[in-house]
Amino acid sequence: MEREIIELFMRHLKIQGDLPLGDDAGAIKLGNEWFVATNDMLVRKTDVPDIMTPEQVGFKAVTMNVSDVAAMGARPVGFLFSLGVPGDIDMDYLEGVARGIGDALEFYNLPVLSADTNEADDLIIDGIALGRTGRLLTRSGAKPGDLVCVTGDIGRALAGLLLWRYGVDVSGRIRRPLYEKLLEPRARVAEGIELSGYANAAIDISDGLSKELHLLARMSGVRIEVDAERLPVRKEAVEAARMLGISAVEMALASGEEFELVFTIPGEVAESLRVEFTVIGRVEKGNGVYVTIGGKREEMPLLGWEHLNRKVYGTYRALFR
Amino acid sequence: MEREIIELFMRHLKIQGDLPLGDDAGAIKLGNEWFVATNDMLVRKTDVPDIMTPEQVGFKAVTMNVSDVAAMGARPVGFLFSLGVPGDIDMDYLEGVARGIGDALEFYNLPVLSADTNEADDLIIDGIALGRTGRLLTRSGAKPGDLVCVTGDIGRALAGLLLWRYGVDVSGRIRRPLYEKLLEPRARVAEGIELSGYANAAIDISDGLSKELHLLARMSGVRIEVDAERLPVRKEAVEAARMLGISAVEMALASGEEFELVFTIPGEVAESLRVEFTVIGRVEKGNGVYVTIGGKREEMPLLGWEHLNRKVYGTYRALFR
Repeated sequence: MEREIIELFMRHLKIQGDLPLGDDAGAIKLGNEWFVATNDMLVRKTDVPDIMTPEQVGFKAVTMNVSDVAAMGARPVGFLFSLGVPGDIDMDYLEGVARGIGDALEFYNLPVLSADTNEADDLIIDGIALGRTGRLLTRSGAKPGDLVCVTGDIGRALAGLLLWRYGVDVSGRIRRPLYEKLLEPRARVAEGIELSGYANAAIDISDGLSKELHLLARMSGVRIEVDAERLPVRKEAVEAARMLGISAVEMALASGEEFELVFTIPGEVAESLRVEFTVIGRVEKGNGVYVTIGGKREEMPLLGWEHLNRKVYGTYRALFR
Repeated sequence: MEREIIELFMRHLKIQGDLPLGDDAGAIKLGNEWFVATNDMLVRKTDVPDIMTPEQVGFKAVTMNVSDVAAMGARPVGFLFSLGVPGDIDMDYLEGVARGIGDALEFYNLPVLSADTNEADDLIIDGIALGRTGRLLTRSGAKPGDLVCVTGDIGRALAGLLLWRYGVDVSGRIRRPLYEKLLEPRARVAEGIELSGYANAAIDISDGLSKELHLLARMSGVRIEVDAERLPVRKEAVEAARMLGISAVEMALASGEEFELVFTIPGEVAESLRVEFTVIGRVEKGNGVYVTIGGKREEMPLLGWEHLNRKVYGTYRALFR
C-alpha cells in the first residue's frame, strides 16, 4: 500500500530538488552549503506501543527526524511540528508529550521554529527537522572497495518489542537495556557530522538493517557482502532471541527504529574516524545483498519485524497448545 | 482548546530560533540571509468542505504553506509533505490529491524535497514550505504612521462557504467568483517578495482580517484604525451578504483562508510599490483595533466564521418557521 501510494504521487510530482527524492531527507543547495529538510509523522495508534510514556513519545518524534538529518551528514539547526489532537485528549498525556519534545530539543540543542495544532481523530505528531552541511551523505554514494560499517549495536529494539508483546518474563538485567533502546532511542548526531567529511554513503536504521542495506545497494548500484558474525549484537539481545526461539542474526537484521547509522567508507579513511563503529562487511561490484552465516553465504532476505513476529507467534502458540 | 494546547507546549519549549515563535513561519539566520520554514496540517474531516474536489484539496495544502512563506517576505524554494492515509482510502481520490499537489508545485515553480506516507484514521496532508529572503517581514514590525493595506479583495471565501452551507440559490454570475476564492485560493508570492523590500509588517489572511489585525496590533504594540468603507469587497460578495441577511463588512472581516496579504508600510514608500493593493487604514500609537462604519467609530470585534454562521442560521431558521 505504502509503495503504491508513493508511486502514485511520484507520477504527479515533476519538479524535484537538487537531490532526487529517495534519501533520508530532501536537500537544496544554497551557495556552498546544502540545506537539508526532513519530515516524519508519528501516529499514536500505529506507531506507539502501549508501554511508551507520553514523554518518550514526544522525545521520539524529535529523534526520528533528527536521525534523518544526521544520516545526511548534516548538523541539525531547527525543528518544527504540527500536532493533530483528538477533541477528547487527556491533557496530562498531552503535557507529557510536550515535555518530551522540550527535553529532546534541549538534548539535541535545537531551537523550535514553528508549531501548529489541529483537530484530528488520533494523536499525530508531524515533526520537521532542518539541517546544514558542506558535504551531503546520500544513499547512492557507496563505492566498490568501501567497508560497510554501523554505529552502536543492533537488535535491542525488536528484542524489547517482542518480549513485551508476548509477556515474556525476563530479569531486569536483560529487560532494561532492551527497553531502553525500544523506548528511548537517540539519534547519532555527532557521528553524522563527523562522517560527513569521510564516508561515501549513509542511511539511518528506520526499517531494519536488512532493508537499509538493500536500499544502499540498489541506490548505489553495488553489491554488499555482510559477515553475520561481525554484527554488533549485545548479549542481552542474543539471550532474548534464544528465549523467543528465533535467530539473533535475523532479529538484528529486522530490528527497526534503532536510529544507528549504516555507512560505507574507504578502509584507509575509516581508521582516522573519531566515531565508534563496527565493520560488518564490504561493498563490491555487482548488485544485491549477501550475508555469510557460519561459513555459508546466501542472499540476505528482506526482513521486517512482522516476519520475526510471526515466528515468535508460531513458537508461543505451540508452547501453549 | 487550541490556545490551551499552544500554551501548554510553550511552557516546555525553552529554546527558540532567531525569530521568536508567533509569526507565520519560523526563521533562522544563515549568514546574511533568513531561511524560513513553515508547516500547516490539512485534515479532511475538519478542513475540507464536501464540494472541494481532491485536486483542489491537494492544491490548497500547498497554497496554505506557500502563503505563510510569502507573508514573511520570502521566496519559496522547496516543499515537503507527510500524508496520513486511511486503509480504506479511495485510490482515485488520492490520485486527485496527488495531481493537485503536483499542479500547485508547478504553479508556484517549487521542487518537492521529501514526501512520506503513513497510515492514519483520516486523510491528513501536513505540508512544509521553505523559503529565503534577505529581509524578513514579521507581525511585530508595524510602526505608528504606517498605512494598513491589503492585497486583492476580501469576503468571497466566507460568502461562498455560507451560500453552499445553506443551499442558497444564486446565479452562476455570483456563485462563480465566490466559489473560486473558496475552492481555489492562490498565495500572493510575487507580492510577498516585492513587499519584503518595503513593508514594515505583514501577515496573511488565514483566520479572517479582524483576527489578523488584532494579532498585528498586539505583536507590534500599536493601535490600528480601519475605515470600513475602504475594505475591498467585490459586489458579488456584497450581494451574497444581503441574501444571507448579514453585514458585508462583518463578512469581509470574518472571512478566513483568503490568503491575501495584510501589510503596513510608510505612505511615501507605498507609492512606489509594484503591487496592487488597497489602503484600508492607519497605524497609530496605542493599542487595540478600531473600525469606523458610517461615521461611527467602534472597537473592532474578533470575528470568526462561526459568528457569521450563527447569524445566518438564525435568519434561515426564522424564514422556515
